[in-house]
Amino acid sequence: MSTITPPADPESDPRVKAVFDDIRTTRKSDFINNMWLWLAFDPDLLEQTWRDVKAVMATPSALDPLVKEMLYIAVSVSNGCGYCAHSHTAAALAKGMTNAEHADLLRVISLAARTNQLATALQVPVDATFDRTA
Amino acid sequence: MSTITPPADPESDPRVKAVFDDIRTTRKSDFINNMWLWLAFDPDLLEQTWRDVKAVMATPSALDPLVKEMLYIAVSVSNGCGYCAHSHTAAALAKGMTNAEHADLLRVISLAARTNQLATALQVPVDATFDRTA
Amino acid sequence: MSTITPPADPESDPRVKAVFDDIRTTRKSDFINNMWLWLAFDPDLLEQTWRDVKAVMATPSALDPLVKEMLYIAVSVSNGCGYCAHSHTAAALAKGMTNAEHADLLRVISLAARTNQLATALQVPVDATFDRTA
Amino acid sequence: MSTITPPADPESDPRVKAVFDDIRTTRKSDFINNMWLWLAFDPDLLEQTWRDVKAVMATPSALDPLVKEMLYIAVSVSNGCGYCAHSHTAAALAKGMTNAEHADLLRVISLAARTNQLATALQVPVDATFDRTA
Amino acid sequence: MSTITPPADPESDPRVKAVFDDIRTTRKSDFINNMWLWLAFDPDLLEQTWRDVKAVMATPSALDPLVKEMLYIAVSVSNGCGYCAHSHTAAALAKGMTNAEHADLLRVISLAARTNQLATALQVPVDATFDRTA
Amino acid sequence: MSTITPPADPESDPRVKAVFDDIRTTRKSDFINNMWLWLAFDPDLLEQTWRDVKAVMATPSALDPLVKEMLYIAVSVSNGCGYCAHSHTAAALAKGMTNAEHADLLRVISLAARTNQLATALQVPVDATFDRTA
Repeated sequence: MSTITPPADPESDPRVKAVFDDIRTTRKSDFINNMWLWLAFDPDLLEQTWRDVKAVMATPSALDPLVKEMLYIAVSVSNGCGYCAHSHTAAALAKGMTNAEHADLLRVISLAARTNQLATALQVPVDATFDRTA
Repeated sequence: MSTITPPADPESDPRVKAVFDDIRTTRKSDFINNMWLWLAFDPDLLEQTWRDVKAVMATPSALDPLVKEMLYIAVSVSNGCGYCAHSHTAAALAKGMTNAEHADLLRVISLAARTNQLATALQVPVDATFDRTA
Repeated sequence: MSTITPPADPESDPRVKAVFDDIRTTRKSDFINNMWLWLAFDPDLLEQTWRDVKAVMATPSALDPLVKEMLYIAVSVSNGCGYCAHSHTAAALAKGMTNAEHADLLRVISLAARTNQLATALQVPVDATFDRTA
Repeated sequence: MSTITPPADPESDPRVKAVFDDIRTTRKSDFINNMWLWLAFDPDLLEQTWRDVKAVMATPSALDPLVKEMLYIAVSVSNGCGYCAHSHTAAALAKGMTNAEHADLLRVISLAARTNQLATALQVPVDATFDRTA
Repeated sequence: MSTITPPADPESDPRVKAVFDDIRTTRKSDFINNMWLWLAFDPDLLEQTWRDVKAVMATPSALDPLVKEMLYIAVSVSNGCGYCAHSHTAAALAKGMTNAEHADLLRVISLAARTNQLATALQVPVDATFDRTA
Repeated sequence: MSTITPPADPESDPRVKAVFDDIRTTRKSDFINNMWLWLAFDPDLLEQTWRDVKAVMATPSALDPLVKEMLYIAVSVSNGCGYCAHSHTAAALAKGMTNAEHADLLRVISLAARTNQLATALQVPVDATFDRTA
């Protein structure tokens, strides 16, 4: 079930085709996952989203690619996004995430959510030493 | 401002003192941040929370200590916990997070939140290939 | 799958029938969507919820009806409510939302989520000029 | 209090100066709010964020500029972002939001949050008619 | 700091005065907390909000008044609402919440947040036996 | 659909078997719900999670067992966790939650979400009297 009808033949639009071709080249795979098929309902939104996903997730940067996938999972889980939990867990596994790393990721995510609740419930004041504007 | 009155002399309770001493030893620092002073209002809650924070965050495991701090930041920001954003950014900096890594972390967190919204708004169906129970 | 058993014959309860009749009259449609069938498990909750949905969403007010549906979508997506994303996207489309407006809505929602994360991660202090109590 | 130290003299960096100049020109105002001063800690992040905020919020599009600000408020409030609630309420007021529109906005936001909870608590199944992939 | 200017003399509006009088009578106290002073910027919103807060929180019902305050805290903390965490913790204490109950409340809230993350991260399928529509 | 493959024969691992046996004994039931089957992919995570769920939810404490289940539901719904809404509603029903209590629970949860939005949107300042550190 979905809130929109994805285009039946998305690559008949040359802007969509260009993005899909770049996804295939970047990922060295013919597979286009549903997120992109759905975003193709608006070529502009598709182009902007892929441009930034590619720039952040598929371009070498300060953080390791697998670390970036695990951060993506952490945010997606916190936001309750089932699709994103699926797609980025798959991506992390494809980048070599081990079972031990996966379990460790879950331990950190769930511990953070737990102490977030405690700090918010108690409204703990921020320690002066944590203020970097001082 | 806070929702509870933290104990005036927390270390007069030997259970609290034992936790605080372990925090100091584990972190090689005399500084006890407010989170622990506030949790001391219930020694049992303090003990359980520290036991698990220590086990996950201060014990060698599959993931790098700095990676774990960055995951903690990602969850804390997603949950809107200001105290936790402060304390774990301070912890990540203490573990050597560079400005470039910090900016990269922010890029991934904010990109993930953005695409989480898109996937949820469109209710994109999960691709069969992402299902690991198949 | 659902956490409750909706009543098998909800309109045998005259309070439920009165609400359902008002929904049909207000919406000029015979269709009662699942939300109301499920809320019928408690006639009081059904009455209160419909009273307020009708007052806010089906009564002329300062904001345009389509704008109100798009705001509803924005909140529902942020809260990760799949049912609500579905039902309010359908309502917005029924009120004439174009593809271009839908894409624009998604652009604003996803941009806001992205900069929310940045402001929270950096704990940016509120500018004095934004304070309207001053 | 903040998690980073914003640059003392941000416009000494020509990339930052270029963005700030464009913000001033686009907004026809000399005022640069803290969000941009803080993002200046990483010129790349500043450039990307401003590029997209300008493209979505300061460029004519399918939706009215005031509607876009109200959608931004709706998402920011749902995500608990105090800074963003402040800055985008100020922006909506600058764009002419009346008290009646503001109250209406709050009515829709708070109603949506309320029914989101009901739909999630009951796990109401999505009506087949809402599925646009069928 | 706040996003609106609350009315300087709210009770000069008879609708506001009527609500405030009812708040004082219902709570047997002269104190009007800021939430109501702020909502007075729109008498309609004030009336609706108080009507429902009174009906749910200040009227005998199936659940105990203190239990209702603790549920309110649980939701408010999960939504990251600092004001609400403060006001409803104060209300729970006024209704007799003990330190032991407060600590127990925090234990449940933080445990739930933790296992919510695990279930979402793993996308655990709902057991058939939990489906009450079957 | 799920992000991991749960172990085919989990109880062949003696650590998993010990946890499952304790779940059965504690709950006086042979039924092991999917959450535990999935967590069995990492025996350490399974052990820690069960240890704490048992300590908080299946051990007599200051709060009534049914109240604790309702708090769990409140948090799970706020976090949008469908699995948890299902499993803890089932648990609350098993502990005797009546329809009237269930409806009351939903009224409090949805009212809290609604006023959380109002307080956050208005950025209502916390009343001095709510500060317990004063």
